[in-house]
Amino acid sequence: MRYHKIPDETVRRLPVYLRGAIHLSQQGVEHVSSAHLAGLLGVKPWQIRKDFSYFGDFGTPGVGYPLESLIKQINKILRLDSGPRAVLVGVGNLGSALLAFPGFRMYGFEIAAAFDTDKRKIGRTKSGVPIEDVAQLRRIRRRRIGLGIIAVPEAAAQETAATLVEAGIKGILNFSPCYIAVPKRVKVITIDIAMDLARLPYYMPSS
Amino acid sequence: MRYHKIPDETVRRLPVYLRGAIHLSQQGVEHVSSAHLAGLLGVKPWQIRKDFSYFGDFGTPGVGYPLESLIKQINKILRLDSGPRAVLVGVGNLGSALLAFPGFRMYGFEIAAAFDTDKRKIGRTKSGVPIEDVAQLRRIRRRRIGLGIIAVPEAAAQETAATLVEAGIKGILNFSPCYIAVPKRVKVITIDIAMDLARLPYYMPSS
Repeated sequence: MRYHKIPDETVRRLPVYLRGAIHLSQQGVEHVSSAHLAGLLGVKPWQIRKDFSYFGDFGTPGVGYPLESLIKQINKILRLDSGPRAVLVGVGNLGSALLAFPGFRMYGFEIAAAFDTDKRKIGRTKSGVPIEDVAQLRRIRRRRIGLGIIAVPEAAAQETAATLVEAGIKGILNFSPCYIAVPKRVKVITIDIAMDLARLPYYMPSS
Repeated sequence: MRYHKIPDETVRRLPVYLRGAIHLSQQGVEHVSSAHLAGLLGVKPWQIRKDFSYFGDFGTPGVGYPLESLIKQINKILRLDSGPRAVLVGVGNLGSALLAFPGFRMYGFEIAAAFDTDKRKIGRTKSGVPIEDVAQLRRIRRRRIGLGIIAVPEAAAQETAATLVEAGIKGILNFSPCYIAVPKRVKVITIDIAMDLARLPYYMPSS
């Protein structure tokens, strides 16, 4: 079953809630109130209650939300329960950092394949993942991988995206600081790290 | 002058608009309509008009927003016009990627200093920035640096944050997948890369 009517802004917050819920659950907590979760995550309690209302009202007043079902629900909504597999293209500094990143496993992800153009890297293994020749990228179609991560230089980003789409990839996480054009059926999330830094000075007191 | 009443969600979108405006301006465009900008950035036109209304209504119907003033305004609101300087702590794979990242310069940022614990890295230069001993991090107080970037392993993140705060840093971009506690006057933005990937499967068609 799909939950069709959840707004993008709520979807954007679901992984935040999931991370908080996993964090509390690992500490042995079984129930959490919206106020407690809000304090931990820096979100407003009413926002949490509103967001959770999209997937059925399952909290108990005075007791809070059961963490185990909360985690299960969010995993199901985000389809993380299917164990999504991603292919990484570009094993430079950023790509290597992504391969080593412990956070993906927490969400049930696996970076199942990595590709690069550099002959010195191809054939070697990084964080347990063999690095393959990008010339073979098209062949991942056979390997039940649904997500692509683009960590190549800007000039190669569009071509990489096109190849990923051709190979049947349905969702792309793009780390290149540029626009990439893909068919409408493919979802692209572009991460511009500088953009997040650019928000910070706004919040700083006058000096 | 500060613009006090801009909601966080609008502040979050301002760098997106800025990037789009710079992109168009570099192509020689002088005016942009909300519809055109919306198409380029994947935002709704009404959202853009609403967001821009927070800093004065300066668009002309039929002509659009003048890009030069748009860029100037957003730079001023985000305080990017002051040329913010950041210190990077942790020059591993991710830190190295950040140092090499061309996107910061676009927003007027400079990573002015970098620190690490690794004796083999200290004293060397990466992307033009000398790597200093983290034991000296406290001394950056004298160097007119307002922002900190944390790219250290999770176990060292909290201590790094505390040292940055002690050294007078007022805004932190945190790449460690953990919560860091700082005094209220310090703004922290945590970037959890896995979190963005976790949103993708939601948008993928059933297979």
